[in-house]
Amino acid sequence: MKKIHSLTGMMDLIGHKTDKTEIADKIFFTEKILRNIFQNYSLSEIRTPALEDEGLFKRSVGDSSDIVNKELYSFLDKNDKSIVLRPEGTASVIRSMIEKKIDNDTHKLWYLGPMWRYERPQKGRFRQFYQAGVEILGYEEGLAELEIMSLICAINKELDIKNSVIKINHLGNKDCKKNYCKELINYLKPMSANLDKKDLDRLNNNPLRILDSKNPETQNILKDAPVIADYLPKESKDLLDLIKETFSNDCNIKIDYKLVRGLDYYTGFVFEAISEELGAQDAYLGGGRYDDLCSQLGGKRLPAIGMAIGIERLASLINAHEINKTLISFIILSSKIEQKTYKIAHNLRLLNSKINLDIQLSDGSLKSKLRRANKDNASYALIIGEEELKSNTVIVKPLLDKNSEQSTMNLNELDDFIKSLT
Amino acid sequence: MKKIHSLTGMMDLIGHKTDKTEIADKIFFTEKILRNIFQNYSLSEIRTPALEDEGLFKRSVGDSSDIVNKELYSFLDKNDKSIVLRPEGTASVIRSMIEKKIDNDTHKLWYLGPMWRYERPQKGRFRQFYQAGVEILGYEEGLAELEIMSLICAINKELDIKNSVIKINHLGNKDCKKNYCKELINYLKPMSANLDKKDLDRLNNNPLRILDSKNPETQNILKDAPVIADYLPKESKDLLDLIKETFSNDCNIKIDYKLVRGLDYYTGFVFEAISEELGAQDAYLGGGRYDDLCSQLGGKRLPAIGMAIGIERLASLINAHEINKTLISFIILSSKIEQKTYKIAHNLRLLNSKINLDIQLSDGSLKSKLRRANKDNASYALIIGEEELKSNTVIVKPLLDKNSEQSTMNLNELDDFIKSLT
Repeated sequence: MKKIHSLTGMMDLIGHKTDKTEIADKIFFTEKILRNIFQNYSLSEIRTPALEDEGLFKRSVGDSSDIVNKELYSFLDKNDKSIVLRPEGTASVIRSMIEKKIDNDTHKLWYLGPMWRYERPQKGRFRQFYQAGVEILGYEEGLAELEIMSLICAINKELDIKNSVIKINHLGNKDCKKNYCKELINYLKPMSANLDKKDLDRLNNNPLRILDSKNPETQNILKDAPVIADYLPKESKDLLDLIKETFSNDCNIKIDYKLVRGLDYYTGFVFEAISEELGAQDAYLGGGRYDDLCSQLGGKRLPAIGMAIGIERLASLINAHEINKTLISFIILSSKIEQKTYKIAHNLRLLNSKINLDIQLSDGSLKSKLRRANKDNASYALIIGEEELKSNTVIVKPLLDKNSEQSTMNLNELDDFIKSLT
Repeated sequence: MKKIHSLTGMMDLIGHKTDKTEIADKIFFTEKILRNIFQNYSLSEIRTPALEDEGLFKRSVGDSSDIVNKELYSFLDKNDKSIVLRPEGTASVIRSMIEKKIDNDTHKLWYLGPMWRYERPQKGRFRQFYQAGVEILGYEEGLAELEIMSLICAINKELDIKNSVIKINHLGNKDCKKNYCKELINYLKPMSANLDKKDLDRLNNNPLRILDSKNPETQNILKDAPVIADYLPKESKDLLDLIKETFSNDCNIKIDYKLVRGLDYYTGFVFEAISEELGAQDAYLGGGRYDDLCSQLGGKRLPAIGMAIGIERLASLINAHEINKTLISFIILSSKIEQKTYKIAHNLRLLNSKINLDIQLSDGSLKSKLRRANKDNASYALIIGEEELKSNTVIVKPLLDKNSEQSTMNLNELDDFIKSLT
């Protein structure tokens, strides 16, 4: 019979045992730590749908971005409506604020979930991938910038990310951006024959984005181009210095005046965190201030700053993954007594919901079941045979500490023992 | 400017403050408790993609189910391939086991995530909805059935679900199912003029499913129909009795010989948990044994039992939602000192990642900031003005206990205080 396969570029993640690289376990662990950090920062969860009207991303992410130009996973639904599987989280969050008429208030939000893009899958690039994000809404430039940088430091610390560099820049205010773009165009126009089509498009639509070009020839031309630093107002430069100074003990922060990020909507402070361990695609999180997006989408003016975190990339940088909680392997020696014995295990779980109790459900010898318990790194095996059931006792066998002896407990002693585990 | 709206039947979930019914907070809390229970039962997480080949569900869920007949959210991708947004989780899990060639092993798995269906949205029925599920794979009938029932009891207990009834039934072995279906057809054929088209289809494709008919006339006809109880082998009835007896102290379990469930692939023990508080669509979880699905999809014979949990329905039954961890509201009194003061808050968070520290990022008077802290149910306000910053002190004001006085701490005392919070 023909087998049904998963779709191109769509990965199954299965915890434990199935994958030598343990990427699934690392992803699950990374997500757990992020959730804890978001709570530590008093952020609220927001969960928007996977599907959105195509217009949302055409109007937000911008025409000059790769996302809209070639990667959007779009389709026509049964009513011939243009639907998109969301490529990123920010546009949906702002759409939700406008729709619920809460775009006049302050919000500190986080999200986590799958995103999609339609492109030929490459190494480390999937059609379904996972992103977490933070959006701090309703706050003007200032403390909110510190809050975002503080979050990045916490992520690096809690996940023990080595060799991280946080690049920061400022796109200035509207006047400065306009003046700088004018000069950049003046500089590049005479050399436009040497630019590829993509960079020419950028030059016409959003000249800043050309600084982000991956074309070596363009980067060569840009060496003598005017730099935004010369056009930035003093307060923008002061902010960059202040941020660098505030977190210099926690993170390696570098001011990089060429940093512009891959989306059109940024208006002020921008940043990304990179690690050389990631190779060519070296950013594992990034973001910036985007004060105009909400009004662009039909809402009120809502000052905003946010970031997105690439879960697969961040997870690939961590060395640890979750240490199992104390695992207890429950072994029933005879199928004749399994129902009565099962009830004992059921009650133990209810007694202490923090333990991780694995009841071995298969038939098999004591030897094979102990082998399984050892393979799973269980701390204890609880063993019940016909004799133990008759006398209401259980054999408790420590597996990790080879010097400890096994002991026999009555059911009350066992209850106390289980309650004492954390 | 034209506003962009969310798509029909697709809900935004936003935690805290935005929704009087608090359904988002209840959903997030329910998911958290489920994750804890799954760990308590030593299950591993599996996460399959949202999108699958349409053939997967046509071949698994079955032609007579509503899911495939009219609700599948399917579309053609840019390569004219028939793609489906998954309507349920089990088929993808089994597809993954086959594809990774681990369908010859035992697995205890859980999943949690969004599912989709394309139908006109009604009250309480969304186009994107959330399901959790458990699949226990590689174990023959016996202990695995107890494990699933034990899980259901744990869910009811941990979420404090009142008035829950767990209906159980057994579809027997192949012979019994065949004999019973024959008798059922013999009984119904003479009355087929009184059946609607849907029930006639069921009669032809999967006669058992007719027991699940919502048509009152059909249910009236079925009153005198043969019952499966008369065809079940003794061991199937014994299993039902045993399950009922084992968990009688924990749950209200009822044997219901008319229970067949809405999917084609069940082969033995089936169950659902209902609550009268849910109205007409009263089941909040359900499942059963499906030993033939893996081989039907091109894999090995893999005995299996599983269940799916409707998160929105389960969440609507809970009364509590998460109590905030100790919330600390951090108040900076003058914008002149905000950067230096921010650093103090940053260090406090790093000191104890368990606390929930909300830095008030807006300008405003002490009065308005204290009002905000009280509204958020903060336990303490930490207040720093220019004087405190100069003398390296902080005012600590307890907000919940009206009898406690505020105190002034130096930064070392504050560190110890923060470390002591859990």
